Amino acid sequence: MIERTGSPAEVRRIACIGAGVIGGGWVALFLARGYRVTAWDPAPDAEAKLRRLVDTAWPALTELGLAEDASAENLAVAPTLPEAVADAEFVQESVPENLDVKRDLLARIDAATPPGVVISSSTSGYGMTEMQTECANPERLVVGHPFNPPYLIPLVEVVGGKHTEPWAVDWASAFFEAAGKSVITMDREVPGFIANRLQEAIWREALHMVANGEATVEQIDASITEGPGLRWPLLGPCLTFHLAGGEGGMAHMLDHFGPSLRSPWTRLEAPELTEELRERMVSGCAEAAEGRSIHELVRDRDRAVIAVLRAVHGVRNGRS
Amino acid sequence: MIERTGSPAEVRRIACIGAGVIGGGWVALFLARGYRVTAWDPAPDAEAKLRRLVDTAWPALTELGLAEDASAENLAVAPTLPEAVADAEFVQESVPENLDVKRDLLARIDAATPPGVVISSSTSGYGMTEMQTECANPERLVVGHPFNPPYLIPLVEVVGGKHTEPWAVDWASAFFEAAGKSVITMDREVPGFIANRLQEAIWREALHMVANGEATVEQIDASITEGPGLRWPLLGPCLTFHLAGGEGGMAHMLDHFGPSLRSPWTRLEAPELTEELRERMVSGCAEAAEGRSIHELVRDRDRAVIAVLRAVHGVRNGRS
Repeated sequence: MIERTGSPAEVRRIACIGAGVIGGGWVALFLARGYRVTAWDPAPDAEAKLRRLVDTAWPALTELGLAEDASAENLAVAPTLPEAVADAEFVQESVPENLDVKRDLLARIDAATPPGVVISSSTSGYGMTEMQTECANPERLVVGHPFNPPYLIPLVEVVGGKHTEPWAVDWASAFFEAAGKSVITMDREVPGFIANRLQEAIWREALHMVANGEATVEQIDASITEGPGLRWPLLGPCLTFHLAGGEGGMAHMLDHFGPSLRSPWTRLEAPELTEELRERMVSGCAEAAEGRSIHELVRDRDRAVIAVLRAVHGVRNGRS
Repeated sequence: MIERTGSPAEVRRIACIGAGVIGGGWVALFLARGYRVTAWDPAPDAEAKLRRLVDTAWPALTELGLAEDASAENLAVAPTLPEAVADAEFVQESVPENLDVKRDLLARIDAATPPGVVISSSTSGYGMTEMQTECANPERLVVGHPFNPPYLIPLVEVVGGKHTEPWAVDWASAFFEAAGKSVITMDREVPGFIANRLQEAIWREALHMVANGEATVEQIDASITEGPGLRWPLLGPCLTFHLAGGEGGMAHMLDHFGPSLRSPWTRLEAPELTEELRERMVSGCAEAAEGRSIHELVRDRDRAVIAVLRAVHGVRNGRS
């Protein structure tokens, strides 16, 4: 087994291959965290666009807090892919979402990157198993799926492919944590990972409603921004429903509202509410609540909703 | 046709029937907006619980801004349902989510409420058509579906039943607007209304993932709170994807990512992306953007995400 070159916390030099909206967002994030970044993108105006993106993002990154040695000066743009990755300790790939392009580029990155260095793909749709087919060293390739913009949204979903070694997944997760991201490490490949599956379910239901004249685009967006969207920055869908159960939490919620899973409240059929599923939801919520009572969760939710409402109103009123 | 008694903006006296978490939340909201509220709930300890709920909510309501003449003193608890609604100019019903209970209570409310006064139900699941069957004056009954907690989350979805007159729907929408809510007026009954359909789609996909071991409760919640949940307080699912299309907006997004609707990214099958659906999404986003360019929308989104991140971090760090 080829071993990784260094510890995730000691990484200083990162290569970003592909410097569009996502790749450029990664560049901005890594620079703000104090890394030295070498980027490569075949588009003729890529460097100018990339530097503009970094300049545009910098005030926000400054507001959120820069690493001590962070500087936009730590960005170099390499003329070729091999030069970009030649001395990288970590590589993030963000080329267009096309399987052939991904396969080809990942193979070229793999061929030019020092042995044992982890290579991560920003793909939002492909599994690593289908992307790593042309690589000589597929064991070090992982998916590291960000959300737009990568320099503001903390989430990154990490998952390997069939030929990825577990150490590479662990290493990538530890590296992203060290870089300040919120990491979800998946133990298997699932199309759309986790967040995109949930997001896509909403999106498809919304498309059905518009197609059927049940709601307009404006109504759909308002139903989220004025409604459940205000709770989701603090409480995900599970803890939200944990609170809907009152003092009895998720257990009461499932026992009481379980039958509504048979109602046509969406076009998506619900799974059967088995004893096992009930138990996973209940114990999962107990863990996720981190010891907070329903009363404490409600208090935190209300504080967060007020703060979020004020934040959003501030932005709306500040529109130029 | 029986006409309404007064204009929505002139309402001063409101009756709230059912004073649990949702009914009590309505009471707190109406008091904060300066209304006089008479509540009724058959539970023996209902009044003590209700006053506690109002007291607990008051600091938050004060922080968000009270109406000039707002006071928790403007709450009376009536010993009987007919006394509660006797001189009401608007009635909000929030009794337990059980069709027989709703039917019975709405008929009793209808019988005791002055003619022409609009009666609104907080139901999150039933259509007004199936609830108004026992009412002598069904034309004035509407659904006014809030989100928990009603005193913080602005959304209320308003829709009539088969026997509801259009004036009652219009009147209720205007009243809720006057009371400071964000109103979505639906022109037809859809099970789950709009927000619950979208929320339920996420919820069912989450249950499937937990049932199949694809994700844990903690991962599902984190995938939202650390990911797309941070964008949704400002941009709903449609405008979010409008931005995912870059400068080309929703049109480019649908043309480019349309094929991904066939991918198994959720268990919910997508509708066919017809020319008509494409046109509705594109023109709907153009309207919802209110003249803002993609660049301006991105700027607003980034400002909002930063403000929301800070708001949520503040609440998390402030946990006692």
